[in-house]
Amino acid sequence: MIIDVHGHYTTAPSALGAWRERQIAALGDPGDAPSPAELRISDDEIRESIESNQLKKMDERGTDLTIFSPRASFMAHHIGDFQTSAAWAAICNELCHRVGLLFPDRFVGAAMLPQSPGVDPASCIPELERCVREYGFVGINLNPDPSGGHWTSPPLTDRHWYPLYAKMVELEIPAMIHVSTSCNPCFHTTGAHYLNADTTAFMQCLTGDVFKDFPTLKFLIPHGGGAVPYHWGRFRGLAQELKKPLLGTHLLENIFFDTCVYHQPGIDLLTRVIPVKNVLFASEMIGAVRGIDPETGHPYDDTKRFIEASANLSAAQRHQVYEGNARRVFPRLDAALKASGH
Amino acid sequence: MIIDVHGHYTTAPSALGAWRERQIAALGDPGDAPSPAELRISDDEIRESIESNQLKKMDERGTDLTIFSPRASFMAHHIGDFQTSAAWAAICNELCHRVGLLFPDRFVGAAMLPQSPGVDPASCIPELERCVREYGFVGINLNPDPSGGHWTSPPLTDRHWYPLYAKMVELEIPAMIHVSTSCNPCFHTTGAHYLNADTTAFMQCLTGDVFKDFPTLKFLIPHGGGAVPYHWGRFRGLAQELKKPLLGTHLLENIFFDTCVYHQPGIDLLTRVIPVKNVLFASEMIGAVRGIDPETGHPYDDTKRFIEASANLSAAQRHQVYEGNARRVFPRLDAALKASGH
Repeated sequence: MIIDVHGHYTTAPSALGAWRERQIAALGDPGDAPSPAELRISDDEIRESIESNQLKKMDERGTDLTIFSPRASFMAHHIGDFQTSAAWAAICNELCHRVGLLFPDRFVGAAMLPQSPGVDPASCIPELERCVREYGFVGINLNPDPSGGHWTSPPLTDRHWYPLYAKMVELEIPAMIHVSTSCNPCFHTTGAHYLNADTTAFMQCLTGDVFKDFPTLKFLIPHGGGAVPYHWGRFRGLAQELKKPLLGTHLLENIFFDTCVYHQPGIDLLTRVIPVKNVLFASEMIGAVRGIDPETGHPYDDTKRFIEASANLSAAQRHQVYEGNARRVFPRLDAALKASGH
Repeated sequence: MIIDVHGHYTTAPSALGAWRERQIAALGDPGDAPSPAELRISDDEIRESIESNQLKKMDERGTDLTIFSPRASFMAHHIGDFQTSAAWAAICNELCHRVGLLFPDRFVGAAMLPQSPGVDPASCIPELERCVREYGFVGINLNPDPSGGHWTSPPLTDRHWYPLYAKMVELEIPAMIHVSTSCNPCFHTTGAHYLNADTTAFMQCLTGDVFKDFPTLKFLIPHGGGAVPYHWGRFRGLAQELKKPLLGTHLLENIFFDTCVYHQPGIDLLTRVIPVKNVLFASEMIGAVRGIDPETGHPYDDTKRFIEASANLSAAQRHQVYEGNARRVFPRLDAALKASGH
């Protein structure tokens, strides 16, 4: 079984974007805000948006199941206040749930949280619980920078985040650490902010001791871990300078990397440097990089080709990357798969 | 000849730090500020600080010449105002100049600029000219984020920076794009902020057209280019989506990467992915990562070992990385070497 742990609903029907525009336009005047009930998207529209996009490519590439969350760049937690994010997250999560209902063997949800800059992350717990208990979601996306490129929240190791971590541990839910769009003109969203956030999150965990307080907490760092695997020697050396344990014990029981790295040398480095047990297959399809690589004739984000071609992995190790690790990191996914006979 | 293009005076005598502390303590009351003349460091003290540190390691490792600039994390452009930075930069640059006078075959200077958040970068030109014309410096370090982790300056492609670029082009001086210490608690200075800035600077250049306006402008991105080489496919794909030319023509006539990557797989990726003409040998010794790698028994920052061991480079290509590229990117270094018979 091949599980892609990182997919977003980037192809949602246009009514979703139109609703969000109305919501943003009404920020100064809450009375004008659209109600969630005003958003009408039919099952046929959802089916069409998935069948002609993600599902088509999954079938072409041989991916069985995608962990599917709302479009990351559209989370835009910096817009409005908690109520704005709460209404928006509820709508986006429900759409992903409906995708899972329409294609139960192919998509399972991960939740966007209703984060808002300066607001206690505990405020996200009701939406998280709803998504897990009512929708059967198996993970969340946690934004370490709800300000959108101004980095005004405390580091992930701060107690600020602990109520959320306690709930994650209780529910056996891992978090993908994933920022949203950048409203800082210095940072291109997908070319800088995403990768910077990955590196930043890892280094925050390295300097702190959050996994001593939450030994079973699990973070999935997307986009191949940002700059981390490429600079693995630097991080090992920094941990040593900071008198931290070896990274294998200090972080790699709790931190995992996905394979959203869009060329063969990058995947080769990732699979050479990071223990196989910490690497989870993903493509972020359909996402930031949608074109065909003229050097290979294949899509940049068809990362399965690189996993297949990597000389670093045995067949058993590929199975770990494709399925075994995902089932271990997402225990609720494993339980759901077992319940349906997988 | 082996040229290390990235070294900082991290081992300056302690009187320098004490002077800086007095300067900072007097920020609220400029009358209490120490005068530059109050800093007294003898030639013997400088000699000792270099001979027992950088020069010792250069001799052990077989490096002939280091392009030497003030300690990057101590630039701290966010502290005080332009006058604060101007006094501090002048002192730090003069010390590097004195190192070059004491060891003329082994160190050549690159200037720290007196940047200050919100201040026109043109204000840096007098110090830049002084360092080049009076001291014979061959490059500068340009901080894309003088706020120290809040990223309040415009992107490097903005006309904000153009007066400085015009002067760099006139003087044939490349810039290493190097941030300083982070005062944002989200970003560890050497583990996140440095690498993020490298990635950010590259992506700023990718989205813009600064090299159309300045065809001979040269940027050296340190720390192996941050996340860029590891995600080279992502950046090629993003350039394609943005309808930019191929990266080879769009950026690689003007952007170069150093080899400050502290393990073999990282250097192997760098030299596999980035054209050899764009890779310049460097170690940032003595810098962020000073320990011995227990996996190899050698210092993390002894990057020459990785260059030697890389199967991707022929002897001629190693020569390019060690010397040829540096002489091309730093024309004033080449002229100085030729003048001294090299």
